[in-house]
Amino acid sequence: MYPYITFLTDFGLQDDFAGVCRGVIKRISRDVQIIDITHGIAPQAVTQGALMLARSIPYMPVGVNLAVVDPGVGGDRRALAIRTADGRIFVGPDNGLLMFAADASEVEAVRALTNPRYRLEPVSHTFHARDIFAPAAAHLASGASFEDLGEELDPATLVRIELPEPTVGTTRVVATVLAVDRFGNLQLNLAREHVEAIGLTPGVDVELIFAAYSYFAVVAHTFVDTRPGELLLYEDSYGAYSIAISSGDARKLTAAFAGDEVTILARRD
Amino acid sequence: MYPYITFLTDFGLQDDFAGVCRGVIKRISRDVQIIDITHGIAPQAVTQGALMLARSIPYMPVGVNLAVVDPGVGGDRRALAIRTADGRIFVGPDNGLLMFAADASEVEAVRALTNPRYRLEPVSHTFHARDIFAPAAAHLASGASFEDLGEELDPATLVRIELPEPTVGTTRVVATVLAVDRFGNLQLNLAREHVEAIGLTPGVDVELIFAAYSYFAVVAHTFVDTRPGELLLYEDSYGAYSIAISSGDARKLTAAFAGDEVTILARRD
Amino acid sequence: MYPYITFLTDFGLQDDFAGVCRGVIKRISRDVQIIDITHGIAPQAVTQGALMLARSIPYMPVGVNLAVVDPGVGGDRRALAIRTADGRIFVGPDNGLLMFAADASEVEAVRALTNPRYRLEPVSHTFHARDIFAPAAAHLASGASFEDLGEELDPATLVRIELPEPTVGTTRVVATVLAVDRFGNLQLNLAREHVEAIGLTPGVDVELIFAAYSYFAVVAHTFVDTRPGELLLYEDSYGAYSIAISSGDARKLTAAFAGDEVTILARRD
Repeated sequence: MYPYITFLTDFGLQDDFAGVCRGVIKRISRDVQIIDITHGIAPQAVTQGALMLARSIPYMPVGVNLAVVDPGVGGDRRALAIRTADGRIFVGPDNGLLMFAADASEVEAVRALTNPRYRLEPVSHTFHARDIFAPAAAHLASGASFEDLGEELDPATLVRIELPEPTVGTTRVVATVLAVDRFGNLQLNLAREHVEAIGLTPGVDVELIFAAYSYFAVVAHTFVDTRPGELLLYEDSYGAYSIAISSGDARKLTAAFAGDEVTILARRD
Repeated sequence: MYPYITFLTDFGLQDDFAGVCRGVIKRISRDVQIIDITHGIAPQAVTQGALMLARSIPYMPVGVNLAVVDPGVGGDRRALAIRTADGRIFVGPDNGLLMFAADASEVEAVRALTNPRYRLEPVSHTFHARDIFAPAAAHLASGASFEDLGEELDPATLVRIELPEPTVGTTRVVATVLAVDRFGNLQLNLAREHVEAIGLTPGVDVELIFAAYSYFAVVAHTFVDTRPGELLLYEDSYGAYSIAISSGDARKLTAAFAGDEVTILARRD
Repeated sequence: MYPYITFLTDFGLQDDFAGVCRGVIKRISRDVQIIDITHGIAPQAVTQGALMLARSIPYMPVGVNLAVVDPGVGGDRRALAIRTADGRIFVGPDNGLLMFAADASEVEAVRALTNPRYRLEPVSHTFHARDIFAPAAAHLASGASFEDLGEELDPATLVRIELPEPTVGTTRVVATVLAVDRFGNLQLNLAREHVEAIGLTPGVDVELIFAAYSYFAVVAHTFVDTRPGELLLYEDSYGAYSIAISSGDARKLTAAFAGDEVTILARRD
C-alpha cells in the first residue's frame, strides 16, 4: 500500500490525457493521493523528463512514481516497475525516463508490466499510460504485490540515457543547455566542480558564446545580486548551473534551445 | 452522496476560474475528490468539449460530472443536471456539451438548476460555473436530492449537437477534423466501419487531400510501425481514426484546424 | 490545524516548480488538501497576482493561503505569514502580493518566516517557495503555532501596492487595463461608481480610445445582450468593469496589455 502516486508526463493539460489517467487511478485506488509533478515536458522529450523527474523526486513523499514520456509506445520497448532502495517504486517505459531518478537511489528489483490483471484490456496501441502504466501504479498503491506485476528483469538490461559531458579547459568550459524553464532560464550540464575548475566564483565576469552571438555576464548567487537586464551564471535551486537574466528572459535574448552548446569564458583583463 | 466530481471546462489554467470553482466546491463538500479531466478545451468550443467529455467519462469513477463550456452564459439557455442509467450525474449548460456523454448511457431524469438554495447568490451574469454549476455539483456530492435542484425537464427538449457525417464512396471518404491534440494529431469523424468500407487496413497506402495540399500516408496500427516523418492514418486509443506523423506534428505540416475537411483516397497502383 | 492550503503562483505548469512544492507540502502534512487557485500569473507580475488572490479568496474555504510571485527572491525582502481577522493565514513574500487579500479582512498579526525548524535547509537562493513558503504553510496546516514561525512584524511596515486610480471626468473616464484573461477580456480599474459617474448604464453607446485606435462599444450586462463581434463594457463576475467582445477576443482586436490606458467616452449624439 502506498498513499501517494506522483505523476509526470509530456501530455500537457490541453487534452484529457492526464485527466483520463487520473480517472483510471481513482477507479482502482480510491484513497491514493495523486501529486502532479508536471505534465509540461516537451512532447517526446525523454531526456528532459528524466532530468526533471530525478531532481523532483527527493522532494516527494515515498510512494509510486508514475512517469510517461513514451515515443516508443506500441513498439517493443518494455513497460517497467522499478523498486529502489529508498522504498520508492517507479512505473513507466523502458527508455531511460526513470533511470536518473532510480539510479540516484539504488535499483533493487525490476518487473515487466505484463500481467493482464493489472492492465486495462484491450490495451491500445498508443495510450499505454491509460492502459498499462496508470493501472499498474494504482494497483501497487492499493496493495498489489510488486512481484505479481510480471516477470523479473535484470536491472543491467534497462535503457539508460547518456548526458553530454561538458568540456572543461583551463579558461573556458563548453557546456550544453539541458532544459529551458518557464522563466527563460537555461539549465546547463554544469556542476560546481566544472565552474570552479576555470576559476569562476560569484562576482567574476564571464563571456557566454553561443553559436551566433556572444554576451557578457556575471557569476552571481542570485538575481538580486545583479542589475536588471544583466545576464548571470548561477547555481540553481537544484544545484545545476544556469544562465538567466535578472528581471528578464534569457531564452528570448539568446534564442537558445535544449541541446545548444554554449562556451563560458572567464574574462581576465 | 458522491465521492467524486470530475471537472472539464474551457477555462484554461492561466486565470483563477477553475481554481475558484474548486474553492466553491470545497466550501460545500469537504470530502469530495475533484478529478480535473481538462480545462484546455478551446474557448467556447462546445463540440470539442462534448467529444472530449464523452470519450473520457468511461474511464472516470461514478460520480458527478461537472462540465462548463458556456458561450451562452447569462442568456436564456438552461442550466442542467442529468441523471443517467449508469448512476452518473452530469451538471452543465443546456447547449449540447453534456449530451454525447449522457446519451452514451441513457438519460433517466433532468432537472433545471433553479433552486436558489443550491446557487451562490447573487448569481453573476458571466460566471455560472462558480455561481450555479459548481455549487449544484458540490451539493449533489454532499447528499442533496437530485429532485430538489429545480423543476423537471423533458429529456427530448435538451439541445443536442449534430456531428458532421463522413461521405463514404467506393475508393474515397471525405472526413472532417473534429479536434487537434497537443501532439498535433488530427482526430477525424471516422470509425472503423468507414475506413474498412473503402478497403483500408493496416499497411495500405493512402492519399490525404486537404484544401491546399495533399500528402501520401500509410494506414498503420501505431507510430512505431512507420518511419519517422511518415504520415499515418490510425485508430486512436478511443477508437476514432486520426492522422499523425511519426515523431512529428501533423498539425504543423498540414495546418489543419478542427472543422477542416480531408479526403482520404486509397492508392491502388 | 488547517484542512486546506490554497496555492497561487507565477510558476506555470510547464516545469516542476508547483509540483515540487506540492511534494514538500505532502511530506510535512499528509492530510491537508491543496487547492490550486492558479499558477498562471505572468512571470513576476506581482500586481496581477495580488489582484487575482484578493478576488479569489472569498470563494476559498478558510485555511492557509500560499502565494508566491517573487522577483526579489534571494534578496532582503522578508518572508511573511499574516493572520487575518477572518481566520485565514497568508504565506508569501513581503512585496505586496498578499496585501489586497489580507487587507480585505483585517491584519491581526504578522510573523517573519525565520525559524529554521520550518524551513528546508539549506535554503536556496532562488526557490524560497520550496524551501521557506511551502514548508511554513504545511507546518501551519499540521498544527505549528503561528507565533513559533519567527519574530513578530509590525503590519504597518509591510510592502503594499498602489493601484492606478481612474481619472473620472464629466463625459469620460481614463482607466487602466489591470489584467487580460484567457478569453481576451480586459479587466479595468473601474468600479460601478466610476462608470455611473459619467452616466453609463446598460444600453449606452461608448467609444473606447486606446493609444493607437478607438472603437465603438456598448455598455451591457453580459455577452448575450450584444451581437457577435460587438465590443462591450460590462461589470464582470467579481464586480470589476471589463472590456470584451461577444464571441471574440478583445485582446486580439485591441492588442492591449496590462498597464495600458483606455479612455471611455459616452457617445451622446
